[in-house]
Amino acid sequence: MAGRFIVIEGLEGAGKSTAAACVKKFIAAQNVELLHVREPGGTELGEALRDLVKRPDLDDAPAAMTELLLMYASRAQLVETKIKPALAAGTWVLGDRHDLSSQAYQGGGRQLDQQLLAQLRDMVLGAFRPDLTLYMDIDPVIGLERARGRGELDRIEQESIDFFHRTRARYQQLAQADDRIVTIDASQCIEQVQQDIERALQQAVQQWQ
Amino acid sequence: MAGRFIVIEGLEGAGKSTAAACVKKFIAAQNVELLHVREPGGTELGEALRDLVKRPDLDDAPAAMTELLLMYASRAQLVETKIKPALAAGTWVLGDRHDLSSQAYQGGGRQLDQQLLAQLRDMVLGAFRPDLTLYMDIDPVIGLERARGRGELDRIEQESIDFFHRTRARYQQLAQADDRIVTIDASQCIEQVQQDIERALQQAVQQWQ
Repeated sequence: MAGRFIVIEGLEGAGKSTAAACVKKFIAAQNVELLHVREPGGTELGEALRDLVKRPDLDDAPAAMTELLLMYASRAQLVETKIKPALAAGTWVLGDRHDLSSQAYQGGGRQLDQQLLAQLRDMVLGAFRPDLTLYMDIDPVIGLERARGRGELDRIEQESIDFFHRTRARYQQLAQADDRIVTIDASQCIEQVQQDIERALQQAVQQWQ
Repeated sequence: MAGRFIVIEGLEGAGKSTAAACVKKFIAAQNVELLHVREPGGTELGEALRDLVKRPDLDDAPAAMTELLLMYASRAQLVETKIKPALAAGTWVLGDRHDLSSQAYQGGGRQLDQQLLAQLRDMVLGAFRPDLTLYMDIDPVIGLERARGRGELDRIEQESIDFFHRTRARYQQLAQADDRIVTIDASQCIEQVQQDIERALQQAVQQWQ
């Protein structure tokens, strides 16, 4: 049986790592193999691109279109060389970010044309989509405060607060329009967040059976 | 007055460096500023991508789609941060490769869908095109022999001879369909090649006046 592709999405400081730990525990109980990947990155080439995109010291900061293409280059490599082969072999895949991030950050935050984004997604990914996306919804003011507590901010995390408000609005809009995206209220206490994630996973697994 | 964008294209070993020297001499005589750039590369970010694309030692060689997106990421960055500002300031730009390389290598060599390539080009570049492209046409058997004489071959240069025959065929086809692309027979002696390039430049400059 083919594996399932579960993705965790959300702003900086939304608690994606906590959510990942929760998903991992759940998957372990399903007695299936798991591959955990992140975007951008997840392959040797992709990790090099991740470093490049996040470097705050480049002479030439990536233009909006450059950044978008690098994100898709990393994604194309990861999907083709890791995710698809894993799923075909019955391994489940847990993704720390995937295509929804480009739609939200580049489409919402950077206000790139939505049609262009959809066109690029279709070009690179075809009909390939996650089976389930957990969108960790958080007010960016709270999220960035948490992220700041973890140390230095990278280039993308240094954007203005408006950028993150626009990104969140696009996340919320896309999550509402797609029943394979479940919104988790990440402002709740950690126990409630974990409970909500577990419920979402249980419901998804029931549907898949 | 806005500058002009002249591009040199062709297979490995077609004599692009000799052609560039010839174009530079011609432009110097026009008494205009010149910016010389190469693709992939030409910016700090682009040069890092160039290194990445050409590395033969990566665990995961770039998938065809990844490679294409990286080429366009490098191109988007170069066009936005260097070429367009230079042209606007009246500086002429000499490009060692540009979009035609993607159409020929990825479209012809790797046999990616032509429509997809055209779509991506329009997405990234809009209507931006070189004013003149000099396509140095050479039989790949001769070209690769010359390139081999220069030392080690990189990942792309290690492709099969069929790959380069397909690339050349696409170059020839695209050159015939576009009157801003002039084909130079690069199998001729160097003096004749230089003479042909000079004639092409003179004709173009006359048209631009």
